Amino acid sequence: MRILILGGDGYLGWPTAMHFSARGDDVCVADNYLRRQLSKETDSEPLFLVPELNERARIFEELSGNKIEVKIGDCSDYSFLLSLIKNFNPETIIHYAEQPSAPYSMSNYKSAYLTFKNNLDTTFNLIWAVKELAPKCHIVKLGTMGEYGTPNIDIEEGWININHNGRNDTFLYPRQAGSLYHTTKVLDTDLLWFYVRTSNLCVTDLMQGPVYGLSTKEADLDFQLSPFFNYDDIFGTVVNRFVTQAVANIPLTIYGKGKQIRGYLNIKDTLQCVELAVDNQPEPGELRVLNQFTEQFSVNEIAALVQAAGSEIGLEVKIQSIINPRQEKEDHYYNPKHSGLVELGLKPHILSNKVLIEMMEIIMPFKDKIDINKIMPRVNWEK
Amino acid sequence: MRILILGGDGYLGWPTAMHFSARGDDVCVADNYLRRQLSKETDSEPLFLVPELNERARIFEELSGNKIEVKIGDCSDYSFLLSLIKNFNPETIIHYAEQPSAPYSMSNYKSAYLTFKNNLDTTFNLIWAVKELAPKCHIVKLGTMGEYGTPNIDIEEGWININHNGRNDTFLYPRQAGSLYHTTKVLDTDLLWFYVRTSNLCVTDLMQGPVYGLSTKEADLDFQLSPFFNYDDIFGTVVNRFVTQAVANIPLTIYGKGKQIRGYLNIKDTLQCVELAVDNQPEPGELRVLNQFTEQFSVNEIAALVQAAGSEIGLEVKIQSIINPRQEKEDHYYNPKHSGLVELGLKPHILSNKVLIEMMEIIMPFKDKIDINKIMPRVNWEK
Repeated sequence: MRILILGGDGYLGWPTAMHFSARGDDVCVADNYLRRQLSKETDSEPLFLVPELNERARIFEELSGNKIEVKIGDCSDYSFLLSLIKNFNPETIIHYAEQPSAPYSMSNYKSAYLTFKNNLDTTFNLIWAVKELAPKCHIVKLGTMGEYGTPNIDIEEGWININHNGRNDTFLYPRQAGSLYHTTKVLDTDLLWFYVRTSNLCVTDLMQGPVYGLSTKEADLDFQLSPFFNYDDIFGTVVNRFVTQAVANIPLTIYGKGKQIRGYLNIKDTLQCVELAVDNQPEPGELRVLNQFTEQFSVNEIAALVQAAGSEIGLEVKIQSIINPRQEKEDHYYNPKHSGLVELGLKPHILSNKVLIEMMEIIMPFKDKIDINKIMPRVNWEK
Repeated sequence: MRILILGGDGYLGWPTAMHFSARGDDVCVADNYLRRQLSKETDSEPLFLVPELNERARIFEELSGNKIEVKIGDCSDYSFLLSLIKNFNPETIIHYAEQPSAPYSMSNYKSAYLTFKNNLDTTFNLIWAVKELAPKCHIVKLGTMGEYGTPNIDIEEGWININHNGRNDTFLYPRQAGSLYHTTKVLDTDLLWFYVRTSNLCVTDLMQGPVYGLSTKEADLDFQLSPFFNYDDIFGTVVNRFVTQAVANIPLTIYGKGKQIRGYLNIKDTLQCVELAVDNQPEPGELRVLNQFTEQFSVNEIAALVQAAGSEIGLEVKIQSIINPRQEKEDHYYNPKHSGLVELGLKPHILSNKVLIEMMEIIMPFKDKIDINKIMPRVNWEK
């Protein structure tokens, strides 16, 4: 299949590109290195440098024999998207090209506007480029479980049938997110759904939970093929941050009560889920929503797992609660459905001791490079 | 009260400005004449020219003694909004500054992107300018009943309590609109709600139905103080278009079956509703949603009312069904609640024979200026 990956330099974009290329698909990645630039600007660089895309593609081709096409450019720019689609003629477009940090989106006007404009323009212009040049192309969009927030009722998979005053109808599940970043994904979904139903587009919206890990079959070929590994408060996700704190011998920092529950998944399962979505295309005029995570944990539970894994390899891991810099419920009902990807064939990798220990072992050689000043919250969601 | 009106040149903006000024408020209007420019570009000019804002303000001051401050600029521009708020120091901001035409938003990429960018940037930048400079200022935002679309259940006033699998929670009513223009207002509401709950803003979102009429107490002082009167397929609303067709002695054109039902209101009631919203401010951290219309009609019912009114003054009005250029349900359930504004004191002006005849009498002198080529649909919502 011809697969175009927008945001192909990112934490998930690059592993996804190698994954499809390795199985024989024609893959083109596009990125403007915005994430790298924002990491520098916010003093949130990953634990180790990874080469830029052309160099990663060269190394990957040398080791695997598989060629990945690289295009450097801004995926929020309509003319760049038109030229990508015209030249590469994709059958599937995987859209990861968004500013992905919630804290970054909450820091100030400039970062909020960048997030808002980059994310919405990319989705809007992608929709139009596909409408104009490749209306049958399947758009696989990375949404987030964060779109739903933490409602007091079960979270369905994208759609909910509402019975009200004796009548009923089906709607997109009402979403209210906890950060501007997550809110841009709410708006993305609304935009996609509008054009799906009026222009017969074919779209999968993957509502993904926080991802952890840095090992994938192809990344393991060579350390230079690893994804970004952010452990900071701005671009790092919680499991990666806790594992890094354990290795650095500083307490795991729990925001508030730590009873915040989310659905998590291993980066290996992100690849599996995206592959299942790509290989099982919805009908034209259908917005298929899949909730993409494998297990749910509270933050306290994750901390306990990291603590237990650390003790197995002789790390004495402490846990410390700090004032929550976010506005979020710290004690809430959480019951999201996630059967769609399992029905398509997902076989989850669970968050075991073994997985956490493997992560610690990968990080251990970089112990001296961990900058503990990057870990404590630097952005407050204050009113 | 110090009231800033964004989009103060528009069909509703200018009458609103005069209305508050006449009752003694300090009023400042801002506009960049985008609507005038788009009317020209799409060959959709109003039936008669109205002076630009400085001249309208001059005439109004001469006749009433009330001064309206005029600022010409782009309300989607953050620095312009900051300077407006800094200099005028408003207690209330009425936000009409959006590209208001559904057909325009559906015509091509350029018009879609303009609508998307103008409408979303204005709302986003307004939110931030208020957060930064006037966090207690009440934002009165013009939404649209079109945000709800035509669901198969009762439409509540903004919020719905959902019972699901034995639990319940309250959400923004799920919205899915019929055009990109209406969809931008769905996104506006989502953005406002996000910042209301995280930044304690004070916002009223007025979900307004299609407005008709051109007579208000202040507009009636001098014909040059009239609002724009668009009767074309792009910027004209259906009642205004039908009345013009009746005067022009051409058939009223019904899109499809004509069973499409919407909630309508007289422009006089727009002023009344906005005044009630302004005078009854919600609490900080509250997004108040009010459904703003007075009566609901099918398109067929409106055509019949216009036909009856025309016959009273000797016009033989024909009715013709044409292929629907829009994607919309032509036969649907429609039961939107609208008690909020009535509880605040709204006294509706109903769509009577008298009202329609008065409109025809105002339009009659311009009969020869009606360009019937502007009336038939020029934009198709085709897939």
